[in-house]
Amino acid sequence: MIRIALDAMGGDKAPQETVAGAIEAAQTGVQVLLVGDQAALGPLADGSGLEIVHASEVIDMHEDPARAIREKKDASVSIAARLVADGSADGFVSAGSTGAALAAAAFVVGRLEGVGRPAIASVFPAIAGGVVVIDVGANIEVKPENLAQFAVMGAAVATTYLGKTAPRVALLNVGEEETKGRDLEKAAFGLLTKGPTNFVGNVEGRDIAAHVADVIVTDGFTGNILLKTAEGAARFTGAALASELLADDVLLDVRSHLTAAITRLTERLDPEYYGGAHLVGSKGVVVIAHGSSSRVAIANALEMAAEGARQGLVQRVVDGLQG
Amino acid sequence: MIRIALDAMGGDKAPQETVAGAIEAAQTGVQVLLVGDQAALGPLADGSGLEIVHASEVIDMHEDPARAIREKKDASVSIAARLVADGSADGFVSAGSTGAALAAAAFVVGRLEGVGRPAIASVFPAIAGGVVVIDVGANIEVKPENLAQFAVMGAAVATTYLGKTAPRVALLNVGEEETKGRDLEKAAFGLLTKGPTNFVGNVEGRDIAAHVADVIVTDGFTGNILLKTAEGAARFTGAALASELLADDVLLDVRSHLTAAITRLTERLDPEYYGGAHLVGSKGVVVIAHGSSSRVAIANALEMAAEGARQGLVQRVVDGLQG
Repeated sequence: MIRIALDAMGGDKAPQETVAGAIEAAQTGVQVLLVGDQAALGPLADGSGLEIVHASEVIDMHEDPARAIREKKDASVSIAARLVADGSADGFVSAGSTGAALAAAAFVVGRLEGVGRPAIASVFPAIAGGVVVIDVGANIEVKPENLAQFAVMGAAVATTYLGKTAPRVALLNVGEEETKGRDLEKAAFGLLTKGPTNFVGNVEGRDIAAHVADVIVTDGFTGNILLKTAEGAARFTGAALASELLADDVLLDVRSHLTAAITRLTERLDPEYYGGAHLVGSKGVVVIAHGSSSRVAIANALEMAAEGARQGLVQRVVDGLQG
Repeated sequence: MIRIALDAMGGDKAPQETVAGAIEAAQTGVQVLLVGDQAALGPLADGSGLEIVHASEVIDMHEDPARAIREKKDASVSIAARLVADGSADGFVSAGSTGAALAAAAFVVGRLEGVGRPAIASVFPAIAGGVVVIDVGANIEVKPENLAQFAVMGAAVATTYLGKTAPRVALLNVGEEETKGRDLEKAAFGLLTKGPTNFVGNVEGRDIAAHVADVIVTDGFTGNILLKTAEGAARFTGAALASELLADDVLLDVRSHLTAAITRLTERLDPEYYGGAHLVGSKGVVVIAHGSSSRVAIANALEMAAEGARQGLVQRVVDGLQG
């Protein structure tokens, strides 16, 4: 059975929502190890049968991540990572400081041999299924060869979560022609053309939702801007449409139906619902959930991590990089 | 009376839609000079009273822009720019090759003294009014001092189009703290803090629609990704919501009302409706419309250019840079 360690102290709504999410995930067959303060977690997990691994420290959002991981060996995220490193867990999930989770993955779990830079892959909703965007924030500045590796890593994620056998990989750029973009994109285009993935060329920001590729490769600065812009625009459009709909007297009569439809959509598009982001290039499965994660988001992130472990995501990355 | 030169041959739907847009704009009091092939434009403009300035050449989307502007002195966009340079027009609008319009602005109209890099400012729809994003594509790579100038230029646009007297200026980044971002953002943050604008700090992609600032400053690569991602996400959300709504049997009965509400929203969010983008830092008013512009988009871009000229946008930029 797949076992996932959860940093139960990480996140704005921890530990109430992290424990509740773990209980939900456990019902779907994921074995969750709750890592955190025994006194805080015990009562919340009472009767759930979930195993608690005590952690006496917590890393908060304002600490320097690398330093915190070095100094706080007993922080919940450090111990969650250690459970992965020593084989007690198949992966870990944290909704705490992203920097701390990245540092724990780097220093405790370790980087796969041959990986220049681990990167964060996020699965976006798109017209048909989802699109993997990599990197959405781990590496603010990268080299062309990093982008070439992100392609391989992103393809492994697309195979794992979207069931694609030869995922279409594209480079995020400001135009389709290979002469477009910064020196970074021009050089990466050449490497991607020669690389092992099914490279389909450059795509623009508007192509993401239209699903012209399964994997979109970019640096962590641009990817982060893209991720958050898409979130903001989706939320704005939903709100604007709701106000348009409710401005119509006829539609006011069916208000409850409209509200229900908008809620269904919001859930579909909300990052909480489509799960956490994967740190790829690490020796274990690492899923980073939103800081604001509710129990639903935590349960989804745990299931995502379990699915990654079940399908051998890490081995897929290794195979991809060797291929 | 304000006179705006229109590159009537530029755009996917030229000259039919460009001429039709000019006729619409003329009805709202803008004096439009139609620049293009007399034989093609004459019949379309017949009876409209619009003046045609003959241009014997056209620059197409696939030509090298700088070279085309140097070699085709009689291209419609070159002549439109020349009308601005010699004072016959107060500004020009083109829906043709963006590169050619930028080159015409640079080589024919000329750059304002002291401006390192002219930039493209786009007015995005937001919760309350609009937000100016600058640069959305003129400069793929920039220096911190360019971003500092973009702040001043963007503030002039916000004053002109959004009626803001001390527009809030923010730097697009991956987090709020001043230590976030690439070397570019870190250095720009310092310059912006010392600069003449009302700098409110860093904002993230999701903050744009939420309207936490009136002007958002970034490089042309990131800005272009942001602009297109927002467009794609808005369109995707609208389509997804429409399908949610029409999946409900009760709502099916009010289908025509739903469709009307969605159409109103689409119009509100469509870049065609909220106008073209401004090239700022040029000695004249230059508005770049979408290549796919319909008559409505062309009319809006012409009115936008006229408003820029009427309010002295160029002088505002000069004053801002000296201030």
